[in-house]
Amino acid sequence: MSRRYEDLSGPELGERLNADSIVLLPIGAVEQHGPHLPLSVDHVIAHEMATAVIDRCGEELDVWQLPTLAVSKSNEHAWSPGTLVLSADTLMRVLLDIARSVASTGVDRFVILNGHGGNTTHFGTALREIRLETGMKTFLMHPSLPPAYGGVSTEEELGMGIHGGRNETSVFMHLRPELVDLAKAERKVPEAIAENTHVKFGGSTSFGWLSNDFDADGYIGDPTGASAEEGKALFEGAVDTLCEAMAEVKTFDFGR
Amino acid sequence: MSRRYEDLSGPELGERLNADSIVLLPIGAVEQHGPHLPLSVDHVIAHEMATAVIDRCGEELDVWQLPTLAVSKSNEHAWSPGTLVLSADTLMRVLLDIARSVASTGVDRFVILNGHGGNTTHFGTALREIRLETGMKTFLMHPSLPPAYGGVSTEEELGMGIHGGRNETSVFMHLRPELVDLAKAERKVPEAIAENTHVKFGGSTSFGWLSNDFDADGYIGDPTGASAEEGKALFEGAVDTLCEAMAEVKTFDFGR
Amino acid sequence: MSRRYEDLSGPELGERLNADSIVLLPIGAVEQHGPHLPLSVDHVIAHEMATAVIDRCGEELDVWQLPTLAVSKSNEHAWSPGTLVLSADTLMRVLLDIARSVASTGVDRFVILNGHGGNTTHFGTALREIRLETGMKTFLMHPSLPPAYGGVSTEEELGMGIHGGRNETSVFMHLRPELVDLAKAERKVPEAIAENTHVKFGGSTSFGWLSNDFDADGYIGDPTGASAEEGKALFEGAVDTLCEAMAEVKTFDFGR
Amino acid sequence: MSRRYEDLSGPELGERLNADSIVLLPIGAVEQHGPHLPLSVDHVIAHEMATAVIDRCGEELDVWQLPTLAVSKSNEHAWSPGTLVLSADTLMRVLLDIARSVASTGVDRFVILNGHGGNTTHFGTALREIRLETGMKTFLMHPSLPPAYGGVSTEEELGMGIHGGRNETSVFMHLRPELVDLAKAERKVPEAIAENTHVKFGGSTSFGWLSNDFDADGYIGDPTGASAEEGKALFEGAVDTLCEAMAEVKTFDFGR
Amino acid sequence: MSRRYEDLSGPELGERLNADSIVLLPIGAVEQHGPHLPLSVDHVIAHEMATAVIDRCGEELDVWQLPTLAVSKSNEHAWSPGTLVLSADTLMRVLLDIARSVASTGVDRFVILNGHGGNTTHFGTALREIRLETGMKTFLMHPSLPPAYGGVSTEEELGMGIHGGRNETSVFMHLRPELVDLAKAERKVPEAIAENTHVKFGGSTSFGWLSNDFDADGYIGDPTGASAEEGKALFEGAVDTLCEAMAEVKTFDFGR
Amino acid sequence: MSRRYEDLSGPELGERLNADSIVLLPIGAVEQHGPHLPLSVDHVIAHEMATAVIDRCGEELDVWQLPTLAVSKSNEHAWSPGTLVLSADTLMRVLLDIARSVASTGVDRFVILNGHGGNTTHFGTALREIRLETGMKTFLMHPSLPPAYGGVSTEEELGMGIHGGRNETSVFMHLRPELVDLAKAERKVPEAIAENTHVKFGGSTSFGWLSNDFDADGYIGDPTGASAEEGKALFEGAVDTLCEAMAEVKTFDFGR
Repeated sequence: MSRRYEDLSGPELGERLNADSIVLLPIGAVEQHGPHLPLSVDHVIAHEMATAVIDRCGEELDVWQLPTLAVSKSNEHAWSPGTLVLSADTLMRVLLDIARSVASTGVDRFVILNGHGGNTTHFGTALREIRLETGMKTFLMHPSLPPAYGGVSTEEELGMGIHGGRNETSVFMHLRPELVDLAKAERKVPEAIAENTHVKFGGSTSFGWLSNDFDADGYIGDPTGASAEEGKALFEGAVDTLCEAMAEVKTFDFGR
Repeated sequence: MSRRYEDLSGPELGERLNADSIVLLPIGAVEQHGPHLPLSVDHVIAHEMATAVIDRCGEELDVWQLPTLAVSKSNEHAWSPGTLVLSADTLMRVLLDIARSVASTGVDRFVILNGHGGNTTHFGTALREIRLETGMKTFLMHPSLPPAYGGVSTEEELGMGIHGGRNETSVFMHLRPELVDLAKAERKVPEAIAENTHVKFGGSTSFGWLSNDFDADGYIGDPTGASAEEGKALFEGAVDTLCEAMAEVKTFDFGR
Repeated sequence: MSRRYEDLSGPELGERLNADSIVLLPIGAVEQHGPHLPLSVDHVIAHEMATAVIDRCGEELDVWQLPTLAVSKSNEHAWSPGTLVLSADTLMRVLLDIARSVASTGVDRFVILNGHGGNTTHFGTALREIRLETGMKTFLMHPSLPPAYGGVSTEEELGMGIHGGRNETSVFMHLRPELVDLAKAERKVPEAIAENTHVKFGGSTSFGWLSNDFDADGYIGDPTGASAEEGKALFEGAVDTLCEAMAEVKTFDFGR
Repeated sequence: MSRRYEDLSGPELGERLNADSIVLLPIGAVEQHGPHLPLSVDHVIAHEMATAVIDRCGEELDVWQLPTLAVSKSNEHAWSPGTLVLSADTLMRVLLDIARSVASTGVDRFVILNGHGGNTTHFGTALREIRLETGMKTFLMHPSLPPAYGGVSTEEELGMGIHGGRNETSVFMHLRPELVDLAKAERKVPEAIAENTHVKFGGSTSFGWLSNDFDADGYIGDPTGASAEEGKALFEGAVDTLCEAMAEVKTFDFGR
Repeated sequence: MSRRYEDLSGPELGERLNADSIVLLPIGAVEQHGPHLPLSVDHVIAHEMATAVIDRCGEELDVWQLPTLAVSKSNEHAWSPGTLVLSADTLMRVLLDIARSVASTGVDRFVILNGHGGNTTHFGTALREIRLETGMKTFLMHPSLPPAYGGVSTEEELGMGIHGGRNETSVFMHLRPELVDLAKAERKVPEAIAENTHVKFGGSTSFGWLSNDFDADGYIGDPTGASAEEGKALFEGAVDTLCEAMAEVKTFDFGR
Repeated sequence: MSRRYEDLSGPELGERLNADSIVLLPIGAVEQHGPHLPLSVDHVIAHEMATAVIDRCGEELDVWQLPTLAVSKSNEHAWSPGTLVLSADTLMRVLLDIARSVASTGVDRFVILNGHGGNTTHFGTALREIRLETGMKTFLMHPSLPPAYGGVSTEEELGMGIHGGRNETSVFMHLRPELVDLAKAERKVPEAIAENTHVKFGGSTSFGWLSNDFDADGYIGDPTGASAEEGKALFEGAVDTLCEAMAEVKTFDFGR
């Protein structure tokens, strides 16, 4: 049976969703990813990952999938014509509006599956705002945690496969091979930054950046070795991990 | 070749889109439509219609399709738990953010294809706001114009098949038959209002309403006679009409 | 006895207004209307029309007249120095603030009489916002419905006497003959648009426009044949129609 | 010739107004004034005073009168059903929107004539906001300066004829005798406060108050001795004073 | 014992503060004060004055001192690089956020000690906003009332020692002698304005100004005769006065 | 010589600060920290740490210290009366206002030293907003990185000495021993959460929490073993680390 929230009628929603249900909101982005990838990368990954997670463990854990929010806060790419950008303020309002609506069902657990690293801190803030306003327990997951926030990137990229790098390109090749043109890709790793102890991606001192701060082409990492096979493994590993995490969400309790 | 905006890379976007291109933003809603229809009706219709229009005349008229915005201003259904509601203010910000982003490509024509009647006046206002701020020519189309704004509804419904009525149900049955349960539908036509000369849907005096003002079940019209066949005809007629309108958009000129 | 809301004292307001009363808010604009008309056109028409309606049927229907809001959303004329413009956002806040205040009296019916076509969609949106927030029944009337929203304009103007055209000029000549200089008027009809089937005023596809999109003089229509006599007939016909509509407002019921 | 801003056409506005002109915005309020006065007091006084000032010295000093803004920030009377309240935020937006519009004419001097003491500090703030944003010189005048901000009130009222007191009632009796019912008036002077050295109206420590903090009837002062004659003298004295002040506005220079 | 609000633990706060307590918020500014004074003048004076007042009468009157808000609305000095400016809107939000937090303790009296004249009208407005929203009694004090709002300045400065003038410089020399360089000071008195009857500082017509309207150096007054001795006397006099005022705050009652 | 930004005069600011300078903004909080600590903990630590860092390396690296912002986003403690809370929106406005002001000096590097973990994600977002709007390079440092964002906490606390725990208590005992009452402290470690693999502090799935979700006393960790000695070591270590990081800030370059 469908696990898509929007496939229910109003009365069914009242019957099927309750305090034990989990509602999942996938969020992507439509933003430049260099010349080798389309704008849709984060949107597609968030959507496909959410769908795969729901297929794997949605029924068991009573998870409901909201329509994927395609556009989000991509202002680090605003310099690139056509990147779609919701301001931080607009996006927070969207999240709060949707969360309030979801809370009206009586659901107690609300999960954001975020496909765009540029949203990570903002959604971190939103978790508390939503919890305080609606009373729901709130969670934030990533298809893969961005390297800038503690996730892993390949050693060859010095841990800086931040945007359009090897892992992301591989996963996208697995999902939409026809939309990738690896011939246009080069190694774009900001080597100088790797020498820092504190001020670097994932370092103790974080820093503000726009994607063209590093290079005019606006991607960061080395996609040249990417492959659909590698992407398949990453994707499937992520589905496993996210379902494990979702099981913890299901029983999460503050202990008070 | 794909006519989806997000399938282009950043550099391709700069090459392919120009002042003669048209960008199309489909907008739906996720809101109760009575017990016989799922929440997704407006979302699905807007998305499928946009896709069909692009397939039919996108290449010829150089139209590019943005990802469908699933959630919009559904506050007339906020009484129904689970309806997803963006506030008027949030939605205007979303539109302006997206329109500014699109305008950065140099495109001169921006079309909203609106699947939810509750957005109609607000988008009417937005056309001017976007034009004034970005300089783009702006247009608003509907899969079918809502009866409350001059569109047609069946005579049997006294022209009041406003929400979840015969036409909408038929079109949805054509698109997603498995999600319709006509057995739960009844005739819900606010007969009293039809007797008014001025204060009625499409009358000279408009009025504010919530979908449960008329009936606790929240739909307005008579879906009992709906059929996929009727829906197919309506859908295909709309695609024809929208492509005719899009051709006028292509050459639209203020004449100055 | 006075039917002006503001002529009552605080305690009288509590005694005289109740759930059966109607409160009427006239709204005009102060904006350029071409060289033949002053900025006050919409303000004067809204105010005089409201006063005439109150005189005709205010006592019988228990209608109370608020002070006319002179300035509103005239951003299609912002290019013309001196046009007074409230932003869409500011105007919505003004409406909601006033409506909340009126609702505190216990009144159940709130009518906007809008003299400026540029507000029409925005007020259409406001009807629902006010109803949802205050619970009042809300209504929108026009001295004459703008052609762009389904109203009539003369055949000679191809239905495009949108702004400063024959009807509006005639009505204003009836009200303030000394402020009209017909010698400065010409025919300014955007003929090209009339040939469209969909993308035209009142067509199935609406479009965003500024008043100088069509012509540098910023008026649209053909006022050359306007006359005070014609204006008198239009004005008096409108008063009749508005009182008929107001009687329907008085007894309007959603039928639930 | 008319000195009303709105009586000009767009092109005339460009010819008649220039950097030597002064634009005057009268602002009133629609708020309870006790049982002896209607809600319109501040609106009527601001409007009549502005008109009298324009008649007296408008031509000589090249002053142009905007339509009176009837409704403003009356939240100290929000407890009284029917008082019309713009929030501080809404009112600031209205002022800035209007001021920006006026500045587009090239006018260099913008004067607010404020009939409602509850706006005084807020307009004091607005003077700088408008100056900073538009570059216009900005001024704030009062028909009579409110006692709470350094103006005079009668000795019998211990200087606390703040709202609906003797002076205001007298002026209104002069302007609209038929709307005053002195039989309903009593002495309402908060004697205790007069004993303070610092925390009192016009003292070195100001304090926040609502009009029902002092008395359930919501007026402050002693209107019992008010008379139209006294009001006439006050009104005419104010016109003299305001024209003197306007002459200083005309030549005001920062001296740099 | 400490009278600093922040030195209490959460549970202590609940025990020590109650409806008879007074909470004091000192507010300064970080803004240019001419070449003879540092940016900190208003911040330091507000902070030192608050501390001295608390030391003198805090225990007796049960007053609690909040951390000094260093930065406020200094937009009249925005032309001077480095002046820290909160917008009017931002500052109002800060005040309301803090006031709501303080009101959650059950305290009934909230006093702002404002060291920056540029905030005076805005805080005057805030007194009512806070009272209306939180129910607390609200008060506004100044180390010395700004001449522009009825306070005194020296005769030699024609009452226009508005900013960086003799009194302010003297007080600061008393508090931070090492940060004053009197050698850089000159007489900067806008003599022309003194000749006005109405349009002048403290006159019946107020006006908007920026600090560089008068002189490129941005200070107003004549600090050349300032001295630490004079400053000491002014400072100590102010502490006396403020404690007298605080005693009136303690027992202030609207008398209803 | 003073390294405090506010100790400079306006003209000096222009001379002393330039594109090679760094401006440091310390931000604390005034919020409950359990019964053993005062509300001031984060404020004091941020302020003292900033001062120590400036003393150590301010001169060498040309760093300027802004006044500490005492109050910030403490809404996870809003349940505790008296906690001072700026909303997320208010705080972002404050940051942007201050950053714009600082950027007007020509400075190119802006560092936030954040003493309150509840701000961490929000400031992470702000880094990009400020960079995009002002062009400054932006950095975020912590006296010690919060365990919830990748920092370390003691093993005995299972890495969950989040708020008022051993490390924070120790550092505060070093700085303000007289304000700590260790007798009131207990072990408050949410053991259950430690068993999770994903949904835990610093795990791959983050979650929204309020400080009373875990325990009614609102602190998280085990302060019982805290000591001033331990605090001194932690404090001094942090100063070392922050100066190392600041040296990297000084030469930080995106490498483009």
